[in-house]
Formats: sequence, structure tokens, C-alpha cells
Amino acid sequence: MTRSELFSQIQQKSSFLCVGLDPDLEKIPRHLLSEPDPIFSFCKAIIEETADFAVAYKPNIAFFEALGAKGWETLAKVAEFIPKDIFTIADAKRGDIGNTSKLYAKAFFESMNFDSVTVAPYMGKDSVSPFLEFDNKWVILLALTSNPGSMDFQLIEDKAGKPLYQSVLEKSQEWGSPENLMYVVGATRGELIGKVRVLAPDHFFLVPGVGVQGGSLSEVAQFGMNSSCGLLVNSSRGIIYASSEKDFAQAARREAEKLQLEMKDLLEKYL
Amino acid sequence: MTRSELFSQIQQKSSFLCVGLDPDLEKIPRHLLSEPDPIFSFCKAIIEETADFAVAYKPNIAFFEALGAKGWETLAKVAEFIPKDIFTIADAKRGDIGNTSKLYAKAFFESMNFDSVTVAPYMGKDSVSPFLEFDNKWVILLALTSNPGSMDFQLIEDKAGKPLYQSVLEKSQEWGSPENLMYVVGATRGELIGKVRVLAPDHFFLVPGVGVQGGSLSEVAQFGMNSSCGLLVNSSRGIIYASSEKDFAQAARREAEKLQLEMKDLLEKYL
Repeated sequence: MTRSELFSQIQQKSSFLCVGLDPDLEKIPRHLLSEPDPIFSFCKAIIEETADFAVAYKPNIAFFEALGAKGWETLAKVAEFIPKDIFTIADAKRGDIGNTSKLYAKAFFESMNFDSVTVAPYMGKDSVSPFLEFDNKWVILLALTSNPGSMDFQLIEDKAGKPLYQSVLEKSQEWGSPENLMYVVGATRGELIGKVRVLAPDHFFLVPGVGVQGGSLSEVAQFGMNSSCGLLVNSSRGIIYASSEKDFAQAARREAEKLQLEMKDLLEKYL
Repeated sequence: MTRSELFSQIQQKSSFLCVGLDPDLEKIPRHLLSEPDPIFSFCKAIIEETADFAVAYKPNIAFFEALGAKGWETLAKVAEFIPKDIFTIADAKRGDIGNTSKLYAKAFFESMNFDSVTVAPYMGKDSVSPFLEFDNKWVILLALTSNPGSMDFQLIEDKAGKPLYQSVLEKSQEWGSPENLMYVVGATRGELIGKVRVLAPDHFFLVPGVGVQGGSLSEVAQFGMNSSCGLLVNSSRGIIYASSEKDFAQAARREAEKLQLEMKDLLEKYL
């Protein structure tokens, strides 16, 4: 998917919502456990009910991988089921030397046709570039994450006072463009998103951490939006586990719509 | 596997060789392609012929993942086939927030019974710690890698002149011990391994990059060995693709034995 196609979809739906698919056998409604593939049935129902409000879906690969080969099959089915006009993110946090990254890229971009994959920057250019060589596919590079451990290394300042996440943002802009490179920018630090926006004015940001992880949507929009929106704000548990009963998909729909309505106002206000 | 069990094996075999399993359908001998599971047949034969000389096997997860669900099944078979007294490394370079890292840990440590998994440090403590909570299982944390891109971020110095990889080494020693934490330390920088050894005197290092990637085994031993050896030196392509004919497993055996004999001398010299 191209950047302009993504932006069109954001305008059409008045939404920049990404729904995170973290399907956990211990958390999905009990009645699904008798289905032949409970995780697929769960994701399918969530996607059907939220597709009007979401511009992106982000399967968290660990949740599928934890189920072994079977989980991998389910992941392929889920990826296939997501409507083609919606942006898909393989949240895999991959990153290895060139040869190996190329194989990860093939797994997600060719075997499964994801639009994007999340990548860790620690190993540098040759671990990221192989993902950038696929037409209309995207790298979403970890820049500033929202977890407590983000403070261990990402904020370390170099001699000139530049934090590591800033080096990642600057350096990686030599490898990719706003047409094929996004960044993960955590939402629990409203003011920091503004700083990151200055460093990468045109790139899309994938913002986790709104909802359960505690970020504020209006702050994210205020500090992070650019003229093409430039934001995909993710919510996982707040949507997919809104109810653990038979009405789980309808409950997910209500939560997704709630966020979309907030987003509509924010798009009108800041875009 | 415990650290003392690993060291016993090193002493018994006079070897600190790790054989990297990067099985590529385009590179394995043609005659295997008619087998029901060519990748498994290839790995099985390699393992059978090299097990006398190897103390560890390191399947590169990307090579399996690139084959989808089928590849994941093959990986499980390969993991199962490796003799139980040999250390196993899932080279996966994972790393995500706590909840998710725990699932990756379960996938590799419980579903597949690997002894260790390679982990990227960028997201900090809560992305690494979940892997450290399993008895007799190991994290192998990326510290200083051997690829060109390692220079992009790993060598950035902070205000006190401390490079990022050193911060990773220091900080992570608060999370794990030499009994459950190893480091990836690239072999293309002989003198640097000595520096890393000072920073982590007791930890095992997984050293990639000997062989095709161009590191020198004797330098690695000279600068890197400690009183429990403290080294697992990996060779992948130099062993597994030593021949592309029917004798591939015997050729792999010869290359593994060559390295083991060098290692025997180095163990006698430096241990």
C-alpha cells in the first residue's frame, strides 16, 4: 500500500485507528474454544466488526508463534482475511544481518502479503535495508517505545546530547523515505512525540500505548499529527477484550467506534 | 542446560564449536529436494555427522519461518532431533514488551525446548527479563555484532565516552547472571573481544563471523577465552555448505573436525 492510499483511507473513514490483534487462548471468550481454529474465529469476528473504523490491523506475531506451526497457519489465514484496502502490520520486531533479514522480509511480504513489518534498529543499516527493497512495503522501525525498558538505552545521550532514539531517527532517514519507512513512537510521553515529529516531519508514526498502556489520544494528535495525518494509533486489549462473553465482537465494535469518533474530531481539529 | 554442563561438554569434546543451521532450499544439495521434508533431511544429516565436534547448534529461525507453517514444523523436528546433551540456540533476535516476550520465550523454551534464544536489547529490561525467568534457559543478548551496520548505533559513545554496546553489557548484568545470560560478540574485531571480556569476565560469548564472515579463530580465543572457556564460536555456511553434492554431510564433518582440532589446540593453550 502506498502512503497516499493510506491517507485516502484515513480521510474516508475519518480514523487513524490500528487494531492490535493479540489473540490469547486464555483470554478469548470460552465459547470459541470448541471451534476448529478458535484464534482464527476470534480474529475473524473482531475484524468483521471493526473494519468500518480501523485503517490498519496489527497481528502481534508472538501470539501466533507461541502456538507453533498451527499458529503460523492461523496467522496466514488472518492476514488473508483482512480486507485488502486496510493496512496490515506484522508486529514481529525482527532485525538480523542482511541475508537473514531478507528471509524475514520474504516471509511477511511475499508468503503472507503484509504491508509492513516492525523492525528493531540495533544491528543498523544492513539489518533494516533488506525490508526496504520491496515495492509498496514498509518498515516500521522502533524509535522510542512506550515500555519502562525504553529508558534503559533509547534515551542515552551521546557527546552532543543527542539521545539514541534521535540517532536512530536521523540515520534511518538515509535508508528509507516517508514512502516506505514509519516509526514506532510511544504514546506515554506526549511531549516527546512532538520532539520526534520535528525530527521526522513527514513519516507516519505507529503509536502503541493508547488505552491499557495509558497514553492520551488527544495529546498524541496535538503533538504528532502532520498534514497527511502521519499517525496510526494502536489499541489492542481495550478493543479485542472489551467483553469476554458472546458479544465480544459487538463490544469490540463499540470500543473501536468510540475511538474513531474521537479521532474524527481530532482530524477535524488538527489536519 | 547449566553453565557447568556446557563447560563439561566443551572439555569432553575439546571443542567450543557451534554449528549454525541456515538451511536454504536454494543451496542444499539437489538430490534432497525429492525427500518429503528436504530441510529436515538436510539438517538431520548435518547434525548426525557433526555432533562429535559441536557443543552447540544454532538454527537460524528466519530460514524456517520463510517457509511458513511447514517451516515451523520442520524447526520443531530439528530441535527435537538435536542430541539432548548439546546446547541449542534459537537464533531469533526477538525482543518485545514483557507480555509479548514471555510468549516468545514460551514458544522457544517450552514448545520447542531450546536452551537459549538470541534477543535484541533495544527495548530494555522488560523486553529481556521474561526470557530469564525460565530455569536453566538462557538469553543470548546482542552486544557487539559483526555486521557492517553494527557501527551505526552500537559504537555511539555517551557523554562519558562509553559506547552503546558497553551500556548494554553493563546494564544487562543487573538483569541476568553468567548462569543464564550470554552475549553475541562479533569476531571480525579481534581487539574488541578483549575489551568486551573485561566488561563481562564470566559470561559466555556467542561469536558469529568466524569463517565466511572473516574472523580469526585464534584471535578470538586469545582475547576472549576465560577459565570456563566462555566461548561458543559459530560457523554456518563454511560447514553446512562445504559441498553441494551427495557427500555434503561428510564434507560438513570434515570442516567441523578441522575447526574442532584448531579449538583443541587453543583450549590447551589458553584454558
